[in-house]
Amino acid sequence: MFIRNAWYIAAWANEVSDTPLARRILNEPVVLFRDKEGKAGALADRCCHRAAPLSLGQVTDAGLQCGYHGLTFDCSGRCVAIPGQEKIPQKARVRSYPLVEKDEFLWIWMGEAEKADVSKILDYPYHNDYKKWPHKHGLYQVKCNYMLLVDNLMDLTHIGYIHGKTIGGSPMTHVQAEMETTPTDTGLKFTRWMPNSAPPPTYSKAVPFAGNVDRWQEFEYVAPTSIIQWSGAIDVGKEARTNRDQPGFSLKLFHGLTPETETTTFYFWSTANGYRQDDPEVTELLYQEIGKAFLEDKEIVEAQQKRITEMGEEALVDVVSDRARIHMRRTVERMLKEDGQAQAAA
Amino acid sequence: MFIRNAWYIAAWANEVSDTPLARRILNEPVVLFRDKEGKAGALADRCCHRAAPLSLGQVTDAGLQCGYHGLTFDCSGRCVAIPGQEKIPQKARVRSYPLVEKDEFLWIWMGEAEKADVSKILDYPYHNDYKKWPHKHGLYQVKCNYMLLVDNLMDLTHIGYIHGKTIGGSPMTHVQAEMETTPTDTGLKFTRWMPNSAPPPTYSKAVPFAGNVDRWQEFEYVAPTSIIQWSGAIDVGKEARTNRDQPGFSLKLFHGLTPETETTTFYFWSTANGYRQDDPEVTELLYQEIGKAFLEDKEIVEAQQKRITEMGEEALVDVVSDRARIHMRRTVERMLKEDGQAQAAA
Amino acid sequence: MFIRNAWYIAAWANEVSDTPLARRILNEPVVLFRDKEGKAGALADRCCHRAAPLSLGQVTDAGLQCGYHGLTFDCSGRCVAIPGQEKIPQKARVRSYPLVEKDEFLWIWMGEAEKADVSKILDYPYHNDYKKWPHKHGLYQVKCNYMLLVDNLMDLTHIGYIHGKTIGGSPMTHVQAEMETTPTDTGLKFTRWMPNSAPPPTYSKAVPFAGNVDRWQEFEYVAPTSIIQWSGAIDVGKEARTNRDQPGFSLKLFHGLTPETETTTFYFWSTANGYRQDDPEVTELLYQEIGKAFLEDKEIVEAQQKRITEMGEEALVDVVSDRARIHMRRTVERMLKEDGQAQAAA
Ligand code: FES
Ligand code: FES
Ligand code: FES
Repeated sequence: MFIRNAWYIAAWANEVSDTPLARRILNEPVVLFRDKEGKAGALADRCCHRAAPLSLGQVTDAGLQCGYHGLTFDCSGRCVAIPGQEKIPQKARVRSYPLVEKDEFLWIWMGEAEKADVSKILDYPYHNDYKKWPHKHGLYQVKCNYMLLVDNLMDLTHIGYIHGKTIGGSPMTHVQAEMETTPTDTGLKFTRWMPNSAPPPTYSKAVPFAGNVDRWQEFEYVAPTSIIQWSGAIDVGKEARTNRDQPGFSLKLFHGLTPETETTTFYFWSTANGYRQDDPEVTELLYQEIGKAFLEDKEIVEAQQKRITEMGEEALVDVVSDRARIHMRRTVERMLKEDGQAQAAA
Repeated sequence: MFIRNAWYIAAWANEVSDTPLARRILNEPVVLFRDKEGKAGALADRCCHRAAPLSLGQVTDAGLQCGYHGLTFDCSGRCVAIPGQEKIPQKARVRSYPLVEKDEFLWIWMGEAEKADVSKILDYPYHNDYKKWPHKHGLYQVKCNYMLLVDNLMDLTHIGYIHGKTIGGSPMTHVQAEMETTPTDTGLKFTRWMPNSAPPPTYSKAVPFAGNVDRWQEFEYVAPTSIIQWSGAIDVGKEARTNRDQPGFSLKLFHGLTPETETTTFYFWSTANGYRQDDPEVTELLYQEIGKAFLEDKEIVEAQQKRITEMGEEALVDVVSDRARIHMRRTVERMLKEDGQAQAAA
Repeated sequence: MFIRNAWYIAAWANEVSDTPLARRILNEPVVLFRDKEGKAGALADRCCHRAAPLSLGQVTDAGLQCGYHGLTFDCSGRCVAIPGQEKIPQKARVRSYPLVEKDEFLWIWMGEAEKADVSKILDYPYHNDYKKWPHKHGLYQVKCNYMLLVDNLMDLTHIGYIHGKTIGGSPMTHVQAEMETTPTDTGLKFTRWMPNSAPPPTYSKAVPFAGNVDRWQEFEYVAPTSIIQWSGAIDVGKEARTNRDQPGFSLKLFHGLTPETETTTFYFWSTANGYRQDDPEVTELLYQEIGKAFLEDKEIVEAQQKRITEMGEEALVDVVSDRARIHMRRTVERMLKEDGQAQAAA
């Protein structure tokens, strides 16, 4: 079950060119491409003639040409050419999906086209600010339902156990973090403070701290599938809580989780170096470290998915650290319900 | 759904020896072998004792011996030996299938044995005439329903798109071909003429044409699964239409499509060199080129099958070039219906 | 369908350490581990928090700690720690399975815990007697229902066909063996005598026989999944029937067949050298030879399973050599019925 009336990340903008790209989104085969003007389009990846995937075709001046018998479609899905045939039947068309290029993302709308409100697309201005936030992006395919990845990001007690050797540090630091959770219009936001704590390996590798630090993790969940993270640390005694824009460690992570199928997810992630902006090696190192940490998450959530696929979620027991996760789940359930009603009414 | 009362190619005759060969046909496991006299037999590939595949056994003087506990069966499927036991029960037998060796093929009948009329087996005399038609044969397993491969051969507008770099040449040449379609007793026949056209790469590599050629493609579909193709080209101005037996380019292709399962097919194909019979390298080259072209078809029909498996054939739109394909489909549907009635009555 | 109220081999004792081991038994995911005292435990391999497999966790002083958020369980399945939380809810527990270490095996009970009677576990004293029975053990995963492997061991006419090149010897020797079958309380026992027969390759490689031998194979089937085998040969004329403890060839094999799923089985096997106890190379050689022979069985039963999965067991025909096999099957059916009633009553 997916929320259809929502914007999802279909691709990184730089993944899509005039070589068609096949990608399954909400379990529908989609072809992404750019026409000869560079405009990105998203069509159902199935020719209306004999069902060949359009992603095996090529972009011509007229649009996307099927690789089997040459029918050609424009970005709106209309058939604009049938080789050897003058008249093009009305019904010769494939579904097109609203697609918007913004902040290095291509956002797609899989639901009712008339509800696709571009103003509702999440802002991620850091992708447009290379000076202050030099960054890199990655993409993993993870074999689990996207909710397990959102869960993962809403209960950070996992950090000490899964990422002990990378970004985590001591488990107890995380468990004892001070946690403030605030509902927002589009989801929720929480900040965890680990005051006067030892900086984890990744942090001290990056910044020469004097000793202990005041460390924070701020997570903003924008339903259904985006998480904006701001993590950092500043030497103790510098009033970090009231001013986080001081020298120290600071990074922005973006997590975008697009359902491929019920049990697989595209994990779009980017890392922005907010502490040594003038050193590209640091930007690269951050990217590598975080990429490794996400593979640690990948391993456990894929194993978790296998169990849930086989045995469901029955008899599971919530614990205290599940609070933000549960709030998030309720938000998604509400959206799913609204979405179902919208679709039933449509 | 398969037409059962029909002859299918089970194997190339030279594939089958006294080493048993396992092959699935119309989704039934069959074992093919030759007994000690060299006679080819086809049995259900499941021992009637404990269901071990007979294809793991060996041919002995008495017949095909199961590799598990040694029960032995003759070509008719009768059990002729049970180790350590004198009396052989009547019901100790496995199903045998009528099997006929002809024109380098082994033809099998998967339906009601009493209807297996050997005179109905297609003639392919070119396989017996190495002088005039030196040839080679190949076999591909293609992951699609066999109908998609017949479709492929009934709508040749695909040639310009799929085979542009091999046997195709310019797409428009194909699209504008003059097409004559004639129904036959066993299917249909069509000839496409591309008069005064540029020879495609494969042709000119083979024959030193003066310039443009009169080019033809003749396809005879013999339902349900055979296609005999005669393609060629002769320099313009030589009255090719009334006499195709002049020097130039000329080849015979055989396409035999045997369903393995609902979504996989054995593609038996042979290529006969009718233009430079005395040069074995040309025969080999032709074989290589055509083999490559068929892999191009394989790629697209397998992708097409995936979409059809997932999404069916709904909302597909026929175009003008589908005419022969549609005629063919009707023939098959009629046969399927007759076959279903025969089986219901049986 | 499995018999649940029975002891099965979960693992070789030396497979299990403080690194958790995931193993599926009767189609349930189980984690095996040893706590810090060395006691072996078996738990359901699914954390009661968010369903992560516990086998991805680690053993700590307190027990088995989940690798996701750190919940920890003792051998009884009770949760003994939740990071950051004082109170542990009653229902925070995972299922534990009775597990007994004995004779180098770890025996597990997958049924109703209160019926787990340790005195019912099979004795295999040879594993504790390295002097008289130096031995080695192995483990194969075989892709068939465990019954097909029991079948295999109950109809030894297969030996001449499958193992002709290894332990078998001439097929006819086996077919003509004198067979005595005796029902027992826990299954059945049969002995096959091949008096005055040529020793098979494996035997003569091991022992310098004068010529023909009196050869025996004794099989004790202990339902549902254990077979104890004693095979040997003594020079003819030594009254082997009344005294098998004379110099010659003699080995003990243990076959333990634990269902992993309906169509896969763990084959625990051990080989004991009872003829040249002082030579470790002989023990090793025996192990290698038998291991190879079991791979021959593996190949055929896996092929057999494929046919049975596809086509069932209909229209199969029993032969004379099936007698012990049929007796065994009846025993298992009776146990299955009793087990079903017990479970229905529970
Ligand atoms: S399938 Fe696309 S043009 Fe025929
Ligand atoms: S299964 Fe073929 S002889 Fe037993
Ligand atoms: S899933 Fe095991 S502790 Fe959370």
